[in-house]
Amino acid sequence: MKLNAIYEAIGEDLVKVDDMMNSVSKVDAVWLAEMLDHSIKGGGKRIRPALNLLAGKLYHYNLVALLPMATSIELMHTATLVHDDAIDKSPTRRGRPTITKLWGLEQAVLLGDYLFAKAGDSVANTQSIRAIKLFCQTLMIISRGELDQARNAFNLNQAHEQYIRRIFAKTASLFSLSTESGGILSQAPESSIQHLKDYGCNLGIAFQIVDDILDFTATEEELGKPAGSDLAQGTLTLPAMLLNERYPQDNPVKRLFQKREEQENVKLAIEQVRHSTIVDECYKAAEDYCIRACNNLSALPDSTIRRTLKELADYVVTRKK
Amino acid sequence: MKLNAIYEAIGEDLVKVDDMMNSVSKVDAVWLAEMLDHSIKGGGKRIRPALNLLAGKLYHYNLVALLPMATSIELMHTATLVHDDAIDKSPTRRGRPTITKLWGLEQAVLLGDYLFAKAGDSVANTQSIRAIKLFCQTLMIISRGELDQARNAFNLNQAHEQYIRRIFAKTASLFSLSTESGGILSQAPESSIQHLKDYGCNLGIAFQIVDDILDFTATEEELGKPAGSDLAQGTLTLPAMLLNERYPQDNPVKRLFQKREEQENVKLAIEQVRHSTIVDECYKAAEDYCIRACNNLSALPDSTIRRTLKELADYVVTRKK
Repeated sequence: MKLNAIYEAIGEDLVKVDDMMNSVSKVDAVWLAEMLDHSIKGGGKRIRPALNLLAGKLYHYNLVALLPMATSIELMHTATLVHDDAIDKSPTRRGRPTITKLWGLEQAVLLGDYLFAKAGDSVANTQSIRAIKLFCQTLMIISRGELDQARNAFNLNQAHEQYIRRIFAKTASLFSLSTESGGILSQAPESSIQHLKDYGCNLGIAFQIVDDILDFTATEEELGKPAGSDLAQGTLTLPAMLLNERYPQDNPVKRLFQKREEQENVKLAIEQVRHSTIVDECYKAAEDYCIRACNNLSALPDSTIRRTLKELADYVVTRKK
Repeated sequence: MKLNAIYEAIGEDLVKVDDMMNSVSKVDAVWLAEMLDHSIKGGGKRIRPALNLLAGKLYHYNLVALLPMATSIELMHTATLVHDDAIDKSPTRRGRPTITKLWGLEQAVLLGDYLFAKAGDSVANTQSIRAIKLFCQTLMIISRGELDQARNAFNLNQAHEQYIRRIFAKTASLFSLSTESGGILSQAPESSIQHLKDYGCNLGIAFQIVDDILDFTATEEELGKPAGSDLAQGTLTLPAMLLNERYPQDNPVKRLFQKREEQENVKLAIEQVRHSTIVDECYKAAEDYCIRACNNLSALPDSTIRRTLKELADYVVTRKK
């Protein structure tokens, strides 16, 4: 199923989120407007704002609060990407040059700060202290996860739990914020808020595992950046982990992590993963989290929107980019 | 007058702010606790939290809201310093190695993000949407000011108004947030909130002009970093501006901005400024803003605390570091 079809019930309101996002670059200084425009209009799947609206639509759909919430989440996501690209010195993202590439690291760090601040301003428009606190605490989790990832670059001795913990922090926490705050802002019962939170969390983990698979299996065109980017930067993802566990004596991941300048091992690792059952194993792991997510949904009242959230979970593990 | 004496009326509560700051580094991961500890315990004059508490004490002193507000302001300040040092690759701050120096640029950027998030979490504890929005909007102003400063590095063609606008953004906006939010959280009348805001703004500009003077006149020991750091990085401050205007044909600032690798011009500029009347002129400019700040106070009801805010203004333009 295509994303646009899944988004149908909230399609019009997602356009309003886009409008709110686009209004961020309406500032008087041309130079700042240009940078903001470039960072905001990078495309993307808008899964997080969609999750926020869909979760809200399960209960007392409060669009006045959900629009700034969804916008703040997408802005926070954008800000973290700007900082990630600055730190990784990535030249491209979604097939376009990064802020760092165009304006330099200094401007990228400061623009990210500006976007975080704008995101905070937007979430304050929900008028919900609970949502605001959740928003800030999620950014703490994300930053901590990124710190942990950077500290563990080129470290081969990482357990599966550490990987899951890290992808929860860097990705699933924001999915979870999207669904949990959707519930909070639409006066869902506390038990449902908890189920929505868990659904977002499991869906986010599945999403990131698939992202980590695609870094090995997709083309540069599909990814919008070179394949194997994570590995090249020393990030140990599930496919790389499994490859290393399968051939503990010698494998390209191990060689790369021992001598990071030997970047030809990135390509070799990609080849080896592609021609193995590792991809299937990883998809199996993603599907497991997807099933958990769907189980979380089953505790919520049946409705069209609940079925949509189920479809979104299916999309997450079958997507090709 | 010494700062401790000025702070007397709020001394005990400033200790509570310190406690709240110190609790930020109470996290389960030792590595993160260590980084947070280093960034938070750097010392500093605590002028911003003091301003916040003092402004609040003029009206219905609401410590339950002021403590997280003051803490959030100091945390935001800390986060911006961590990012500044990352961007400038500064090895020292307040006589101690920076986060960047100890843990690298990547960790510094992400730790700054964590501190921004923690600051947001703290300001949410005020339970005041108005204070939260003001907080976020201030960070937008600061980031934009820093972006502007970075864009204009080594640009000699800057007007005095541009300098004032920039130091408002990077420094005075946070002073202004401190006093304005102090008024808001203690239910001051709207007109008083405006006066407090203006006082903070003018005081902050005076403070930054003095900071820019000290970068030329103070010793490395007093500054906690090498003298002339701003100039070395191409930041055109008031003393450098005046030197360039006084000797438009040729001067060390002009030479440095034309050939930034000729860093010996930093020392020459410092010497020339020190042996001229430029320092006095700059102090005169700072004092003018200080007078404006005191005028803003005169519209508020007379009290011990109002006199304390006046003393703080006097301190700002007479301080030696």
